[in-house]
Amino acid sequence: MKSVCLGLALGLFSFSAALCASPPPNVVIIFADDLGYGDLSCYGSPTIHTPNLDRMAAEGLRFTDFYAAAEVCTPSRAALLTGRYPIRSGMCGSRRVLFPNSEGGLPKEEVTIADALRQKGYATEQIGKWHLGIHEGSRPLDQGFEHQFGLPYSNDMDGRPGLPKGSTGSPTPPEDGWNVALSSDGKIIEQPAVQTTLTKRYTEEAVKFITEKKDKPFFLYFAHTFPHVPLFASPDFKGKSRGGIFGDAVEELDWSVGQIMATLRATGLAENTLVFFTSDNGPWLIMGNQGGSAGLLKDGKGSTWEGGMRVPGIAWQPGRIKPGVTHELANAMDLFTTALTLAGAKTPDVPVDGVDLSPLLYESKALPQRPFFYYRGDQLFACRIGEWKAHFRTQIGYGQAKADAHVPPLLFHLGLDPSEKRDVAKDQPEVIAQIEAAVKEHQANLVPGKPQLQ
Amino acid sequence: MKSVCLGLALGLFSFSAALCASPPPNVVIIFADDLGYGDLSCYGSPTIHTPNLDRMAAEGLRFTDFYAAAEVCTPSRAALLTGRYPIRSGMCGSRRVLFPNSEGGLPKEEVTIADALRQKGYATEQIGKWHLGIHEGSRPLDQGFEHQFGLPYSNDMDGRPGLPKGSTGSPTPPEDGWNVALSSDGKIIEQPAVQTTLTKRYTEEAVKFITEKKDKPFFLYFAHTFPHVPLFASPDFKGKSRGGIFGDAVEELDWSVGQIMATLRATGLAENTLVFFTSDNGPWLIMGNQGGSAGLLKDGKGSTWEGGMRVPGIAWQPGRIKPGVTHELANAMDLFTTALTLAGAKTPDVPVDGVDLSPLLYESKALPQRPFFYYRGDQLFACRIGEWKAHFRTQIGYGQAKADAHVPPLLFHLGLDPSEKRDVAKDQPEVIAQIEAAVKEHQANLVPGKPQLQ
Repeated sequence: MKSVCLGLALGLFSFSAALCASPPPNVVIIFADDLGYGDLSCYGSPTIHTPNLDRMAAEGLRFTDFYAAAEVCTPSRAALLTGRYPIRSGMCGSRRVLFPNSEGGLPKEEVTIADALRQKGYATEQIGKWHLGIHEGSRPLDQGFEHQFGLPYSNDMDGRPGLPKGSTGSPTPPEDGWNVALSSDGKIIEQPAVQTTLTKRYTEEAVKFITEKKDKPFFLYFAHTFPHVPLFASPDFKGKSRGGIFGDAVEELDWSVGQIMATLRATGLAENTLVFFTSDNGPWLIMGNQGGSAGLLKDGKGSTWEGGMRVPGIAWQPGRIKPGVTHELANAMDLFTTALTLAGAKTPDVPVDGVDLSPLLYESKALPQRPFFYYRGDQLFACRIGEWKAHFRTQIGYGQAKADAHVPPLLFHLGLDPSEKRDVAKDQPEVIAQIEAAVKEHQANLVPGKPQLQ
Repeated sequence: MKSVCLGLALGLFSFSAALCASPPPNVVIIFADDLGYGDLSCYGSPTIHTPNLDRMAAEGLRFTDFYAAAEVCTPSRAALLTGRYPIRSGMCGSRRVLFPNSEGGLPKEEVTIADALRQKGYATEQIGKWHLGIHEGSRPLDQGFEHQFGLPYSNDMDGRPGLPKGSTGSPTPPEDGWNVALSSDGKIIEQPAVQTTLTKRYTEEAVKFITEKKDKPFFLYFAHTFPHVPLFASPDFKGKSRGGIFGDAVEELDWSVGQIMATLRATGLAENTLVFFTSDNGPWLIMGNQGGSAGLLKDGKGSTWEGGMRVPGIAWQPGRIKPGVTHELANAMDLFTTALTLAGAKTPDVPVDGVDLSPLLYESKALPQRPFFYYRGDQLFACRIGEWKAHFRTQIGYGQAKADAHVPPLLFHLGLDPSEKRDVAKDQPEVIAQIEAAVKEHQANLVPGKPQLQ
């Protein structure tokens, strides 16, 4: 018995020693807005050319089964930063997202990645779209970020009076069409924000932050405004892609990712920085040519079909993460737990839904099997365990008045049928029973937060 | 003037000298059967793991807009080997493909890649599925191949008496269900062919051929039997993929590609061998879980929607082909012209539809713009020029009794709308006029071959 204890003690010692030996890793999350599963070359897009993201994927770990935590913007972002299903923080409900006239926002008491990492001495910055509240307590500087540069919400909100109908989805939206404010450290510096150069300016700010903070650990949450409509691209990218203004905007995002990677290499930080690229939800299909693509997945943004929530997910840390493709089931809430684990930060004493991805990223180990719950607003619509996904309700993202209820649920095997074409519920009552039990357990222990979106 | 002529003469001389200095390149065409646009990791498949093809793509040139020359098997193969639309050789018509009781086959007078390269001293071998005729004049050894190893036609033809209904699409088809014959150099060596080990045995034959012929130029036409149904995989692959037996079969193909690449590297031939991987048509969607996926493209095998004819296309020749992704419009008939050009062979004195891809492959030059004609059988259904595709008739691959005719044609912009969702014909009369003129010119000069499939 003594030798076992000694072994354990030595094991702990060497683990701690390793932690002390190198500074804790930096964390960079790059978050696209409404980018679909099929909108990058490395995920099969024939029309959008993304050599930097393709290189990130080739040098890193590309997920085939990575999920946004919600089917639309605000809840997805709340979940990413808190590691919790949005219903726990009240960041979902009767309205789908926060609007400029919403009274709520991300509650102050929610612990964000920025809160936790700042406690561990990390420099923290939020760049780009926030969309988690504009009132005191909910703003970036109230939620753990020392610095902020970007827009308070979606770039189509706050249209100016007299904006012509159809402007949002126009291939040439008016540059002065939206009154949305660009702010820096909480102070408005430009209104209306000039949207054509947003990606460029965000990127410059990110490069500056990384360069300045290179001697201490940092957390950068870089949440792009695009490819959410209205779409803009700088003159270097406008009209250059095969995919029209949507493709132009995504190709400028790709350029931006290349700048971040180049800066990390140039500063010698690449090996000690986990970069994760993903999107907040699926493509906004009702926007037609400007709506992107979910590839072979069904439907898009707003829906709990796979196209609404399964998104690109790429982890990059050269020399540390073994290049490859993984089919492990993971989601944006896991970034919370992973970041906290890497920083050696304490997980808050509230229910947390994310798990630590480090064993997968650094040791190619399988993740624990766990259910994934697909919410539409505050309603649970579907649940996946392993390859099986059961739909209790279905509704396309936009344009269907009411959900269809399913008793028994629809059941799809996502390995054999990733496009959710062939319901096999009648052949698999035991799988359905297993999923129903997981849902029941989840709901029995759930304490919904106070609704914030009204 | 004199100096210009001298310059030209010197240029020709150095070009000839370069040709003399290195042996003409070997050509390997690897041809999958019914593999869809979305069925490889590097084309966005979430469920099929193809690390060897992904590596081939990362080290080579991956096409986003590569087409099979027909929407089903026999015509597609005839066109690949002859560089001509199938209607010119009579290899399409009222029956969709050749059947064991068809009286015709690829006419002896058609010049195949094998004919032309053999004339230039190449060793030639055909491995795998033929499906261009079983009668004298049409067989592999009659069509320029010195050696042959494989099956005469699709692996679902020639079912044994009493084969249970549904066997073809079963996840566990009976191993002795089909009487199809495996032959070597034209002699039957096994009947019924044991299908579970076909991919493995084909690959061994290919490795043997490459190794034996390494001191002279060679042309290998390696036409896999899978993932055409019934699907089989060897014990090393069966039950191993996420995608069921379809995924297992594709992952075994991927292994096979890895063996070819490894053999070429080991023999020092990789830099002097052009390897091209593609498929004969889109996924056979009516086969459900065994039908694969066209990714974001519409419909599949049998159809002139993009999913029926746009397929994976990867060119690999390390050190010679610059790695990347290309959006150039190319098709299987181009492999004929490219192979003949590389071998220094004379193009036959008949209408040839393929163009030489060498400038694109080796110098990253754009290809000449030309129309691409989508035939269903012997009927022209659609035409693409640049990003524009006009459909004069549409019909899903299987299950629709008659085609729908369109006057004016449906028109799609494949850059903005690769999934062919939004007809824009009414806004683009000039584009339609341009495409109609190209069709008219094509048809005015067309001499259909004698129908062979009856």
